[in-house]
Amino acid sequence: MNISHIEHIGIAVKNLNESIKFYEEVLGFKCYSIEEVKDQKVRTAFFMVGQTKIELLESTEPDGPVGKFIEKKGEGIHHIAFAVKSLADSLKEAESNGVQLIDKHPRAGAEGLNIAFLHPKSTCGVLTELCEKP
Amino acid sequence: MNISHIEHIGIAVKNLNESIKFYEEVLGFKCYSIEEVKDQKVRTAFFMVGQTKIELLESTEPDGPVGKFIEKKGEGIHHIAFAVKSLADSLKEAESNGVQLIDKHPRAGAEGLNIAFLHPKSTCGVLTELCEKP
Repeated sequence: MNISHIEHIGIAVKNLNESIKFYEEVLGFKCYSIEEVKDQKVRTAFFMVGQTKIELLESTEPDGPVGKFIEKKGEGIHHIAFAVKSLADSLKEAESNGVQLIDKHPRAGAEGLNIAFLHPKSTCGVLTELCEKP
Repeated sequence: MNISHIEHIGIAVKNLNESIKFYEEVLGFKCYSIEEVKDQKVRTAFFMVGQTKIELLESTEPDGPVGKFIEKKGEGIHHIAFAVKSLADSLKEAESNGVQLIDKHPRAGAEGLNIAFLHPKSTCGVLTELCEKP
């Protein structure tokens, strides 16, 4: 699948501003971007940690995927995203290996990336995202 | 706190061998180490992805922390571990910032690292580990 590194870790939080404060003041990271992804019903905040981003996710609506996650499991790590060279090829490869795809085709995600999610049923319980730079 | 990068992502799995198969055959990583950490009642498998490791965790006993996690939340991402220069100083700094510590002092973790956990109550729901190379 040619994964180069972990592009980001998505973390579901109840309150974006309070969580940004923790990541900045306690862990010492710097929030470099806040972005709303309407498609996913989330407001996101990004931090760079080495070669990987931390993406905090606050649900903008209770029925959004992050709102539902928090209701079921509480705040915590929501997904892991791997950087791939060719997203379309990686999705084909995953499907041919029996992986259930949430997104059959790349779509637009935060930070201008093309993204697609694999279903946690096929990935040992971890919501897994693949990302490519367009 | 002087965090350089994400040292590893810990993922709770029900069956280590099946999960290794997924991470190797579907995602294309190579498991370079399998290690039992008796203290934590887990069997672990490690993969290198860029500068970050993925650590799969299988509980060796139902009452271990990973066994309890899976019972409560299902398989999934269990913790995030940050690499720090001085673990003792980082723990002091976290405590002075009001963070509840699970480990007040560094202890031995997998891969020969000194480690300590911060309590998810103080870290926006994410079980957070700090690691230093001895």
